[in-house]
Amino acid sequence: MHTRFILIQTSHAGNVGGTARAMKVMGFDDLVLVAPRWANVLRREETIQRASGANDVLDKARIVDTLDEALDGMDHLCATAMTPRDFGPPTRHPREHFATLLGQGAPAPAGQPGDAPSSTAPQGVAFLFGSERFGMRNEDVYRCHTCLSIPTDPQFGSLNLAAAVQLIAYDWRQALGGYALPATTPQRAPADAKALAGMLRHLEQALVAVDFLDPEAPKKLMPRLNQLFNRAAPTEEEIHILRGVAKAMLQVAAQAKR
Amino acid sequence: MHTRFILIQTSHAGNVGGTARAMKVMGFDDLVLVAPRWANVLRREETIQRASGANDVLDKARIVDTLDEALDGMDHLCATAMTPRDFGPPTRHPREHFATLLGQGAPAPAGQPGDAPSSTAPQGVAFLFGSERFGMRNEDVYRCHTCLSIPTDPQFGSLNLAAAVQLIAYDWRQALGGYALPATTPQRAPADAKALAGMLRHLEQALVAVDFLDPEAPKKLMPRLNQLFNRAAPTEEEIHILRGVAKAMLQVAAQAKR
Repeated sequence: MHTRFILIQTSHAGNVGGTARAMKVMGFDDLVLVAPRWANVLRREETIQRASGANDVLDKARIVDTLDEALDGMDHLCATAMTPRDFGPPTRHPREHFATLLGQGAPAPAGQPGDAPSSTAPQGVAFLFGSERFGMRNEDVYRCHTCLSIPTDPQFGSLNLAAAVQLIAYDWRQALGGYALPATTPQRAPADAKALAGMLRHLEQALVAVDFLDPEAPKKLMPRLNQLFNRAAPTEEEIHILRGVAKAMLQVAAQAKR
Repeated sequence: MHTRFILIQTSHAGNVGGTARAMKVMGFDDLVLVAPRWANVLRREETIQRASGANDVLDKARIVDTLDEALDGMDHLCATAMTPRDFGPPTRHPREHFATLLGQGAPAPAGQPGDAPSSTAPQGVAFLFGSERFGMRNEDVYRCHTCLSIPTDPQFGSLNLAAAVQLIAYDWRQALGGYALPATTPQRAPADAKALAGMLRHLEQALVAVDFLDPEAPKKLMPRLNQLFNRAAPTEEEIHILRGVAKAMLQVAAQAKR
């Protein structure tokens, strides 16, 4: 499946750069600009600055005069629009729509057969973004299969253009399978309950030695600490550290009473 | 539950404005800046321009000298980090972590009791973001309960700071229940199969009349059109339009043969 981002009549060079970067971090690289305000927008300083290394996306990007020229190979068109229209393709949240489109969604609700997952996934998916000030023109929205609405605060729906591209690119990449976590902190293996109990006995001796715990009136101190350490689920290494602390407490207490 | 976004040693005023806007579209308004590069960053022109109307977030924002001063009321700290560390809190994808945190997740895998959903959801959740150039300092990451890693292309993980805030704010808002679709295109009710069959008979007559369909050798034209219109699932109104087209075809054909 091929993915394309199409910016229509974009005004701000910074948004073109931000779009290239937003696409590239999610592994997309096909950008088409329809009638941008600046003919040289792909080479403007602000564009390159905001692209922050996504230069290959800018190098590959095409500038065309009409939306028609941007649509070759695309068979599923997603409009993005802030303002609901009283006519046009069905409005959807991106996550739900992508699940349906890829056949991962729940069955369509009764009475809406048009919403059922298509039997064949699309070959080319295009995301269309209108200008910063006016959004998409009605005639461009009407050509689309779906209108994506990013769920924002009803009181303040003013998403930045590159931020909208970032969210759509993220949700689409996730729907396509996403990326794995980077190799990172090794999985911590908690010590077993026997090791924890041994540490707690060691700590109990130390707390008695430093006169914090009165063995004649222990109250619930040790059960409380047991609960605390259960939640923390210490590793073997951390058990060693805690035993070291207990040992040091016992030593200093012995010195003090010498 | 309270949510706070904390930017540590942020260099670019534009990112502070972009962060305010990214927060506000997702319904969050508590922003704290720890030791930003510009003391007057909340009033700089670039900040206000990129905030694009999220002025109340900037007005409410606090500037503090140390991370400690930013943490009042917060009991669950999420670091965000690009570079994996060999020590520190567990690294998680935001969506999975948020589901676990809110008790919506699958049970923790065996052997990782520390990952189990907490029995009580946190009262205050803080998202920490480091500087544009260096990310978060180790000592700040070590204070956190989790390290969030936004899944990006392994070949290009360079997310813009405000874009990262936008993605985290979106996933967190969605985990908290999200926002409903705006009132929009009325749900389309497809016409029933009887209405569709009536229209197809009307169309068939018209196709014969204009000499496109040969009743002696119809091949599979009508079944093909039936399949096409099944997929399109036309409404009653659209059936009327199609019948109007058939009627006009019949009229013009009658005139032609007069």
